[in-house]
Amino acid sequence: MTPEQRMEEYINTIDEALDRFLPDIDMPQKKLLDAMRYSLFSGGKRLRPVMLMEFCRISGGDPADAVPFACALEMIHTYSLIHDDLPCMDNDDTRRGKPTCHIVYGEATALLAGSALLSAAFEIMLAHTRGLSEAKVLQASHIIARASGLHGIAGGQELDLFHANLSTDVVRTIHERKTARMFAAAAVTGCIAADAAPEQTEAAAAFGNLFGLGFQLADDFADAAGGDVCLLGANASREAAKISLNEALERLAAFRDPDLLIWLTNRLLKELDG
Amino acid sequence: MTPEQRMEEYINTIDEALDRFLPDIDMPQKKLLDAMRYSLFSGGKRLRPVMLMEFCRISGGDPADAVPFACALEMIHTYSLIHDDLPCMDNDDTRRGKPTCHIVYGEATALLAGSALLSAAFEIMLAHTRGLSEAKVLQASHIIARASGLHGIAGGQELDLFHANLSTDVVRTIHERKTARMFAAAAVTGCIAADAAPEQTEAAAAFGNLFGLGFQLADDFADAAGGDVCLLGANASREAAKISLNEALERLAAFRDPDLLIWLTNRLLKELDG
Repeated sequence: MTPEQRMEEYINTIDEALDRFLPDIDMPQKKLLDAMRYSLFSGGKRLRPVMLMEFCRISGGDPADAVPFACALEMIHTYSLIHDDLPCMDNDDTRRGKPTCHIVYGEATALLAGSALLSAAFEIMLAHTRGLSEAKVLQASHIIARASGLHGIAGGQELDLFHANLSTDVVRTIHERKTARMFAAAAVTGCIAADAAPEQTEAAAAFGNLFGLGFQLADDFADAAGGDVCLLGANASREAAKISLNEALERLAAFRDPDLLIWLTNRLLKELDG
Repeated sequence: MTPEQRMEEYINTIDEALDRFLPDIDMPQKKLLDAMRYSLFSGGKRLRPVMLMEFCRISGGDPADAVPFACALEMIHTYSLIHDDLPCMDNDDTRRGKPTCHIVYGEATALLAGSALLSAAFEIMLAHTRGLSEAKVLQASHIIARASGLHGIAGGQELDLFHANLSTDVVRTIHERKTARMFAAAAVTGCIAADAAPEQTEAAAAFGNLFGLGFQLADDFADAAGGDVCLLGANASREAAKISLNEALERLAAFRDPDLLIWLTNRLLKELDG
């Protein structure tokens, strides 16, 4: 199976599971459910859940065991995007070429949809243990909780809004909290679900963090290339992204069959040179 | 020990634990932490965590085992208040006689503070198992996750914003989701932490739900008495609150020493007649 085929298979599995975990059923608060599903199924690349499932597989586990965590991660990612787009945050009208959640459903419902996706992520992780021990589910859910809050996404968004001094270190701190910690959580959760050896889990954490930093820096570079303001400037973003992504690739030496992760990382590297 | 004394003891325990779980330390995103702590320590009555700890005690457990859940519940309650007060929701400038979170810290930080408190609640519950089995921690955390999201607080807030038809049934649906399910989760979580008998856990769930409905209807009555609009009107709210609270009292027959819960319920009933 090629990396592209495996990626597509994961994405299908994730999309089906998301639809099963958050089904389109009738209820008095149907508009809220519609808003949650609108953003959840609006063309996300599913990078975090794919990474989670792939780390489970290459650590010797069954990726199917990791599906509830993968879906939870995608819900948390979607929650952060909905809130990030709100008028009091980045005030974005479109995302991935579509109107943002608050443009379609109004600010109040979009706010609630984001928060309800965060709750739903935990509801799913904590209810579906499948082949995993309860201790593992607790450990993985705790890591994901931490990566989503004060020390993770929310903390990074706060810094992103109110940074005063744009040194490379400050930008790294923002990107780490806002983006990289959740990628690291994805990688580590995959390893936990597979009962991976500690050295593999460590390598996965490092890969997730470096990939996440590179991913965010590449995003900054694309913004700058498109004429938008970015934190470090175009060239500095591109160079820092390359360093981070190449370092990430080195961490994959701890795994026997990391072709999909190499392919994903190289795809980002190519975009930087394209 | 009188009910008042026991209540005060619980509140001290909860406040100390909240301060320990979310300590006032330095970090780049300090303003976000300040906003979280501002709302968490702004004079809440701690009703939900008190109920949780008391159900643990009267079901034969050690209330200390229930402290992480109690703190998590208070954080989730605080998150819902912060978001409820935002301009796109109820647009309230004051709460409990103090400026609301977004008035002090701005809308963006208040939004993030609410969400970060929701994440922190799970971070705490999932990390501190104390004397409890992992299975129990998963069970209780899942119940709390469910009561906070689409089928609980967030769903109720959505209905509260966009209700068109104010029949008694609709109001009950709103109150159940927005308020009662979290009180029921508090009561049930206390029982789970104590390994209570199924009939006690059932009685606790029913008490929590009825108390929560009565509590919200009493709140509506107070709003109406103060000249504000309320969902059902003053008299209907008061009568429905009384019925609900009296029914709640009946459910306490399943417990040997429910004096604190009787006292809390009677206090609400007295306010309705006062």
